[in-house]
Formats: sequence, C-alpha cells, structure tokens
Amino acid sequence: MPDPDDKEFAKTLAKGLEVLAAFDRETPGMTISEVANRFGFNRAVARRIVRTLEILGYLKQERRVYSLTPRVLRLGYGYLASNKVGNVIHPILKQVTAEIDEPCSMGVLDGNEVVYVAHSPGEQRHFSVGLTVGSRLPLLTTATGRALLSRLPEDHTKSLIQEAPLDRETPKTEMNRERITTLITEARQQGYAYAEDEVEIGLASVAVPVVSAAGVLIGAINVVVNNGRVDESTLRSDYAGSLKRCAVHLAAALG
Amino acid sequence: MPDPDDKEFAKTLAKGLEVLAAFDRETPGMTISEVANRFGFNRAVARRIVRTLEILGYLKQERRVYSLTPRVLRLGYGYLASNKVGNVIHPILKQVTAEIDEPCSMGVLDGNEVVYVAHSPGEQRHFSVGLTVGSRLPLLTTATGRALLSRLPEDHTKSLIQEAPLDRETPKTEMNRERITTLITEARQQGYAYAEDEVEIGLASVAVPVVSAAGVLIGAINVVVNNGRVDESTLRSDYAGSLKRCAVHLAAALG
Repeated sequence: MPDPDDKEFAKTLAKGLEVLAAFDRETPGMTISEVANRFGFNRAVARRIVRTLEILGYLKQERRVYSLTPRVLRLGYGYLASNKVGNVIHPILKQVTAEIDEPCSMGVLDGNEVVYVAHSPGEQRHFSVGLTVGSRLPLLTTATGRALLSRLPEDHTKSLIQEAPLDRETPKTEMNRERITTLITEARQQGYAYAEDEVEIGLASVAVPVVSAAGVLIGAINVVVNNGRVDESTLRSDYAGSLKRCAVHLAAALG
Repeated sequence: MPDPDDKEFAKTLAKGLEVLAAFDRETPGMTISEVANRFGFNRAVARRIVRTLEILGYLKQERRVYSLTPRVLRLGYGYLASNKVGNVIHPILKQVTAEIDEPCSMGVLDGNEVVYVAHSPGEQRHFSVGLTVGSRLPLLTTATGRALLSRLPEDHTKSLIQEAPLDRETPKTEMNRERITTLITEARQQGYAYAEDEVEIGLASVAVPVVSAAGVLIGAINVVVNNGRVDESTLRSDYAGSLKRCAVHLAAALG
C-alpha cells in the first residue's frame, strides 16, 4: 500500500472526502471559514474544495452555510446494493422484529468502529433508538462490537482490543481491556455478546455474529432495548436465540 | 456558482467521487484498468485515484479487483442524521407499515431523479421490492417522482418535465411529456400520485408529497405493491389515506 506522503496520494481528494464525512447531527452545516478552521486548510483550499463539492451537487449553500444534499447517498449506495442490504438483509432482519417485536440492526467492522448497514425498526414506543444506516458506535463497549471481535482472526482481535478507542460514556462503561478480552472470550463460547448501560444508561443489547460457511465474518446482528422493559435473562435466552436463527439465514443468503 | 472549467474546480476530487459513485449491484468491483477505461482516465490517473481511496479505507483490493468498504457509509450518514432519518422518519413510516402491512419508503428529489432516504420493510412475501437507502428511480414515471413534481414551484416542475430522462422500461411506461404533465396536475388535485406497470410490470405504487407548514417540499412517501395482490381502488383510497396521515405527522416532525 502506498504511503500517504507519496506523490501518488491525491491530497485534494482526501480533503474533499474528509469534509463530506464531517457533517453530522451536531454539525449539519458549515461555512467556508468553519471548514478552513476545523481541518486546518487555508481559506483558498477550503473554498476550492467546498465549491467543487457544490458544483458536483454534493453540497448546497444557503446564506453562506453549506450542507449535504441527498446526492451523498450515491456514494454509499453501491456498498448497500452490492452487499444485498435491500433485497436480502432487510427482509431477514424484519423476521426477527416480527418474532420479538423489537428493532434489530446489522453492523459491520469499519477500522476500529462498528458501522450499521441495516436497521429494522420495531413498533414505535416512547423510547426509540435513533440508529440508522451509517450510524457508528464504539467497538469495545457495545454488544455488536464484541460479537464481531469474537469471530475475527485471533491476531486481529488482539490488536483491536489494544488499539480501539475506549471512552468512558457512562459510569458503567467497561474500561479495562483485559476484562473486555474475557467478555469477548465468553461471547465466542456463548455465541452471543451482551452489553448493558455502557454506551448509554438504560440501554441493553445482545448481538450475534454472522459468519459464512467458509468461516469468514460477515457482520453481527443485534437487538437494543430499554432495560427497564426487558430483563437480562430474556435478552440472553429468547432474543439471543432469535438472533442466532436469523444469523444462520443471513449466512446462507449472503455467504 | 463557479464554472467546472474554472481553475477553482478540483478535478481529482471530482474524479474520485465519480469512481466511488460508480459501484453498484452490476459493478461491485473494478480493476485499475477498468476504472481507466470506464471513465476515460489515463492509467496513471486511475491508479492514483484508486490507491488514494484505498489508503483512505474507502476501497479494498482483492486479486487486483477493488470494491467498496462500509466506510463509504460515512459519506451519506451526515445527510441521514441531520435530516432525522433514524430517529424521526423511520418510526413514523413504521406506523404506515403497521396500518397497511406493506413496505413504504420516503424519497427526495436529487437533480432529475428520486433518491430513497428511508425504507420500512413490510412482512416478507415471495415478492419483495429491493429498495434500500440510496436507491435511485426515475422522476417522471414513478408515483414518488410525480408526487414530488406536484408540489415543486411551477417553473421547476415545468423544466424537470421537459428535461428529466424518459426511458421506456415497459410497454406501459408513459412516454408523452404532456400526458405526464396532466398526471402531475391530477396528483396536485388529489393529493397523491399513482403509477402502475411503468417501471416494472406487476408493480403499482401510490405516493403522497410531504410539505412543511411553510410550503416547502420535503419529500414524498410511497407504497409499492404487487398489483395482482392489491387492487387499484385500495391503493387510491385506503393506502393513499394512510400515506396522507403519515405525511401530516412527518411534516409536523420535520418542518
């Protein structure tokens, strides 16, 4: 793989993608000055990148504030379509939602994070998890992340446990990497991973890896619930059981 | 807006985005030579772009074939998150699916196409529509497209009716732009648009625009069914009615 300092590395392309990826719920819009400040670009560079993205239709401007247009969805669509998210994954996830009447999702590994590629919403309740396609969550402190880690090649799992970020999000976030190693070993033995109150107080989740017949990790599927409404034993028995059956269907359909 | 021939236009950024957007179900992977041929880049340019995207983690390589990684979902996530797709749109769409037990979706205008930003799958049937976030459909021959056109400013609607692509996908595809104008006028009067057998034989769809209290078009929501299973009058009465109630909730939540 070439070095990022190589002359082969297209810096303007990298900067443009960095700008597109920076918009989120907290930062739905930025001015050219804000782009320059945030990324340490000089103003001419920031202006050139932002206006190029505007000409291409990926950004729109209103009173000097630039925000994303739906055209950015083109860039992720190829991944979703070629991985059969619409026609295979969604219908199978829907069966879990029908069985247990809770929202469920599929996540995959992206670097040292989990990214969600599909989501089947449950019945609307007062409490509702705002997950969507592209939502990112930490690897080490979520059930989905631990389910993924439980089925990666051992060296890869070890290095991710050492290197993935570990931020204390609640008083219950597990911050000890050795204890996390133990939880992942348990997940491998049980066939599911469990996490509660670690990303947000009040949320519990169970997750099951999806592994192809050839043994390749495809992703992990999970259910997140309000832990005041569903108890731990239901999650670990009934919900983990539904997810395991779903994982078998997914592996057969995707593997 | 600056000219694409302007020196301010970052051509490498444009080329990189063109490459990322080109992957889909039919083209899940490309070699460097295929990228060069498809876009008319010389081989050195194609190599520089592809390897930059690989270094950044957006493409991965297996036996010289490059394909998308889930990292591309970062680029669309900001749009979905800042437009409240996960926490507002999905739960409201889910209510329609619960009412009529059919999949429903929300689409928005992107240039002269419809792009789907949210999808609530119905119960799995033998027949299942492979729509997903980022799916693109024609504007003039779909119910969703006509619903959007029924509530755009008049000049914008007129120019899109003249300029949007019109491809004969089935023997029933409406190819007459005047007749399409009439269908859009009817949609404005009825509060919903209808299309059958135009994109694919056997599919019928009804769609309703979502318009903010200030009169700004946000998007359109639609239901697609197998027209052998659900008849036209059910679509035009019951299903259009459910969608209209949903559109009111969405407008209140998003406007």
